Amino acid sequence: MSPEYIKSLSLEDKELLCSELRDKIIHTVSTNGGHLGSNLGAVELTVALLSVFDYTKDKIVFDVGHQAYSYKLMTGRFDRFDTLRQKGGVSGFPRISESPYDAFDTGHSSTSISAALGMARARDLKGEDNYVVAIIGDGAMTGGLSYEALNDLGHSRKKMLVILNDNEMSIDKNVGGMSKYLKNLRISSGYLSAKRNTENFLTRNLPVIGKPIMKMMLSVKNFFRFAVNKQQTSMFEDLGLVYYGPRDGHDLKGLIKHLDAVKDIKGPVLLHICTKKGKGYKFAEEEPSSYHGVGPFDISKGVVSSGKLSYTTAFAGALTELATKNKKVLGISAAMAQGTGMDKFAFKFPERFFDCGIAEEHAVTMAGGLAVSGFIPVVAIYSSFLQRAYDQIIHDVCFMNLHVVFAIDRSGFVGNDGHTHNGLHDISYLNSMPGMTVLSPRDYSDLKKCMDYAINKCEGPVAIRYPRGSSVFEEEGPLYTEAEDLFKPHVQSDLGDEFAILSTGFIAEQCQDAVLKLSELGFKGKHINITAVKPMPSEEIYELTKNVRYVFTVEEAILSGGFGENLMEQLKGRDLKIIPFGVEDQMIRAGTYKEQLVDSKLDADSIVSRIRSVL
Amino acid sequence: MSPEYIKSLSLEDKELLCSELRDKIIHTVSTNGGHLGSNLGAVELTVALLSVFDYTKDKIVFDVGHQAYSYKLMTGRFDRFDTLRQKGGVSGFPRISESPYDAFDTGHSSTSISAALGMARARDLKGEDNYVVAIIGDGAMTGGLSYEALNDLGHSRKKMLVILNDNEMSIDKNVGGMSKYLKNLRISSGYLSAKRNTENFLTRNLPVIGKPIMKMMLSVKNFFRFAVNKQQTSMFEDLGLVYYGPRDGHDLKGLIKHLDAVKDIKGPVLLHICTKKGKGYKFAEEEPSSYHGVGPFDISKGVVSSGKLSYTTAFAGALTELATKNKKVLGISAAMAQGTGMDKFAFKFPERFFDCGIAEEHAVTMAGGLAVSGFIPVVAIYSSFLQRAYDQIIHDVCFMNLHVVFAIDRSGFVGNDGHTHNGLHDISYLNSMPGMTVLSPRDYSDLKKCMDYAINKCEGPVAIRYPRGSSVFEEEGPLYTEAEDLFKPHVQSDLGDEFAILSTGFIAEQCQDAVLKLSELGFKGKHINITAVKPMPSEEIYELTKNVRYVFTVEEAILSGGFGENLMEQLKGRDLKIIPFGVEDQMIRAGTYKEQLVDSKLDADSIVSRIRSVL
Repeated sequence: MSPEYIKSLSLEDKELLCSELRDKIIHTVSTNGGHLGSNLGAVELTVALLSVFDYTKDKIVFDVGHQAYSYKLMTGRFDRFDTLRQKGGVSGFPRISESPYDAFDTGHSSTSISAALGMARARDLKGEDNYVVAIIGDGAMTGGLSYEALNDLGHSRKKMLVILNDNEMSIDKNVGGMSKYLKNLRISSGYLSAKRNTENFLTRNLPVIGKPIMKMMLSVKNFFRFAVNKQQTSMFEDLGLVYYGPRDGHDLKGLIKHLDAVKDIKGPVLLHICTKKGKGYKFAEEEPSSYHGVGPFDISKGVVSSGKLSYTTAFAGALTELATKNKKVLGISAAMAQGTGMDKFAFKFPERFFDCGIAEEHAVTMAGGLAVSGFIPVVAIYSSFLQRAYDQIIHDVCFMNLHVVFAIDRSGFVGNDGHTHNGLHDISYLNSMPGMTVLSPRDYSDLKKCMDYAINKCEGPVAIRYPRGSSVFEEEGPLYTEAEDLFKPHVQSDLGDEFAILSTGFIAEQCQDAVLKLSELGFKGKHINITAVKPMPSEEIYELTKNVRYVFTVEEAILSGGFGENLMEQLKGRDLKIIPFGVEDQMIRAGTYKEQLVDSKLDADSIVSRIRSVL
Repeated sequence: MSPEYIKSLSLEDKELLCSELRDKIIHTVSTNGGHLGSNLGAVELTVALLSVFDYTKDKIVFDVGHQAYSYKLMTGRFDRFDTLRQKGGVSGFPRISESPYDAFDTGHSSTSISAALGMARARDLKGEDNYVVAIIGDGAMTGGLSYEALNDLGHSRKKMLVILNDNEMSIDKNVGGMSKYLKNLRISSGYLSAKRNTENFLTRNLPVIGKPIMKMMLSVKNFFRFAVNKQQTSMFEDLGLVYYGPRDGHDLKGLIKHLDAVKDIKGPVLLHICTKKGKGYKFAEEEPSSYHGVGPFDISKGVVSSGKLSYTTAFAGALTELATKNKKVLGISAAMAQGTGMDKFAFKFPERFFDCGIAEEHAVTMAGGLAVSGFIPVVAIYSSFLQRAYDQIIHDVCFMNLHVVFAIDRSGFVGNDGHTHNGLHDISYLNSMPGMTVLSPRDYSDLKKCMDYAINKCEGPVAIRYPRGSSVFEEEGPLYTEAEDLFKPHVQSDLGDEFAILSTGFIAEQCQDAVLKLSELGFKGKHINITAVKPMPSEEIYELTKNVRYVFTVEEAILSGGFGENLMEQLKGRDLKIIPFGVEDQMIRAGTYKEQLVDSKLDADSIVSRIRSVL
């Protein structure tokens, strides 16, 4: 759809377009899975944006990017939209490699205003005159990065439009002072017209005395000027932006009018619109938290919970059980109580649970404050999002050797959300932090045991990483008995001395397959699983492997600073040939979990052929 | 000084105490070096705090901590204050390991409100009733973490006091919308008393009509209630805090009165005070940027610039020269223009320079926005502070393979500021980032060559790490000729085949010493320096070292994920015994640079004895 074509449509046709976009989104997501609620909420906004701006010249930056489906559909990706989130297909997020009309890659929260400000500054340095628009949700607005950017934007005076898409949700219900503040702005619907209302009131209801009072009021300088100023001042205006809103984000005609009105203001503008997450699909409207990110579902029935056990539910169960016995245990989430399973804990112990908003850094430093006061905070954050608190984990937890438990969900490959959401850096960065214990459990019972250790036996910072989805190991029963030690290597198969595969975490599944397949091919080796990545049982590993020809370490994580490299360093100078397998210096893009394993050569068949080529 | 003793002092004695504290601070810093301006600015505040609160029970959290000297002096560290910042001495920052009265370790910016909120929540969970106070500067308030914490605090309704110590400076002059906003609050001095003023005005000046007008005004609901509310609403109140201020932060009597007045408010309170950086020492008052962190100086003459060439000045010179030729080059700083040498660039190219405030994450993501628009932003941030933008470097730069240059000053050991300021993680985290080029120059000419490569030849993300202070290599002349390749190993000494030391960066100095000393002891080896840590010339290294018995890598950085481990991984399966030397899983605390080298066994003598014990 060319910019001219969109602009040429009548309002009625544009409204028709909105329902076509909604249908396409609902049908595609019901087949491929994806982000539903946020995309349905942004349909009118996107049509309005492309009615006013020219996507071939103007820069439109979607924060997080899980509301960009309509944009993708309208900017050349309608025909191949059925490949959404599939390997080689249309990404679930904006990607500059996918389209020249995607201005910036997104996936993590709160980056849009910063990126857009860079583009606005670049535009002015080049003497160009395109528009730059950042679209950010009220959830992403709780992230400190967005505030840092607003602070700089207000000061810069750059011409740029920030659209605050306020649906009172991030993934869970929003929390925090900002959320309340936005609610107040929404409630005070007469906000911007207060002065006019007063004038009307005075002149209409008090025709005689009204005018002189108005005049008098205007002369009470100290009070009135200030009051009128403050009356028109929102927090955003305090930072130097012009504020408009709140406006109805599903009123297409109104949106187009407002965008037209504000687009030529010479300076930073914030337009506050209110939308409904899941708009147009009743199941999603009613239960927005459950329709944020979904797998395939039946449109007529909505999403049905599989009820299947997963690492997340195993974590939630273990935490709640342990917290019942140990009153010092507290729970912390960064706007992800449901996704991390923390909601179960929060339901049982509401006073011991804190949701910090999309604010991973604050969540970690606040946990430091709780831990230094004698509590044991369990911070549950997805692996790729915890990257945001890298410095806080070092500075506000490790340097004081505080007992904070990091429960790291979505570790390793996450499948169709793609590279921005993969949790591949955790082992590397956690290994480098002084005093941090790093545990990478294989299955549910292992995870439970790690939780028990982390809460009741560990005395400093400890991280437990576990993947998205379900374990195949459950059927085999628990890996370790209660009496066994998490910090010892566990031999899972011992078929010979030609080689040893050392695995850590969920990838043990592929390794176990590989060692059996290799045996069938005549290569007899061992498979040893290690839960404790740091401190690592390197001497015990050496004892078990000193007679094999090659040791292959396998981890679902980047190589640099990982389990394999750390083992090499710890066994330096020994006569042991260690070959680490892990993720190379590359991005592993969207696909199924299995496809991502193949792309990184970490599936069982790739492991088999890589080991054969060495032997 | 017991809490009771402090409280029992008369106002005159307290004022005398303030000048004694100032004298002690000026004299100690003039001898040991340290943070002068911020500490001098916080003397009255600290005396007032300890006059109102009980430091043995209440929690006082100093943000950054470079204003805590008075607090240390008053809480049991007066006698040993002459050991300030020395090995084993009083730390330049609060340390829970040093005193039970230091509530939380600090060093990096913007953590205090988060940590204090954790303490306030812990207090309430325990049913205790102590006070929790966070003291944060207006500079630290530009960091997003502080906003995330305010957002949570406002929502939490916890009883907690935030003191905004507003000196209009961070290290450099503050920037950003927040800074302007605070200035407006300062200017509108009648701020909080506006309502009272109006009432006074009306009743005093309009005795007859005044009262009914007041009554009528109160009935104009839509307007007046809102106006009155907004009139008393600062941005902080929008987030749910009670705001008081601005008050004079050097008026001891007033401060004590205000603290007394606000301490029992049931909920979060922000007290905004204005102070002067460097107060009481004229040189520091006049030139606060130059008196933020200083080395030893003569009190009567003030700090005199050594004029000595340093890595920082070499960087600044190279950048300005390269930017003159390449118009695409832009400069970005995070409130550290002077410390990073960016001020030189900013002076020459004001329109091409952006200071983002203490907002490392925004600085990096904004740089992404500039780079995707075709510019080459050079982001100059100290190593330990760049840790804060770990995720932004991956997500907003590396994943798009954007050409952003990271100029990382204060890499390696920094000396007396201690472990929070050491730049030991950079090699590890940069190595793990997809597509990142990592350069670790040895000397000024090497640094200059890296800058040229990074700006004019590199096409993706590239980082150059270099240390604090001066190079010893300058006298030897440039290491490489122009024609040589940064990506090749450089043999500095070749005395035999018993061993090879592979160094990267400034630590080459110790390695060169070590190889000569070992030779005198009869152990003949080589010293090879490598500037390119990633991609690493591993094949060339192998060719040069395949005949030696042991290869020792030496880096002034943590081992995990470092140069040594990466080399081991790249040369996996070869018959080469590599022994990496670097910083183990520990904190290297304050001391001189040399002492920190010794503590981590990376000084020449330690290297000699470690190598001898292997050979």
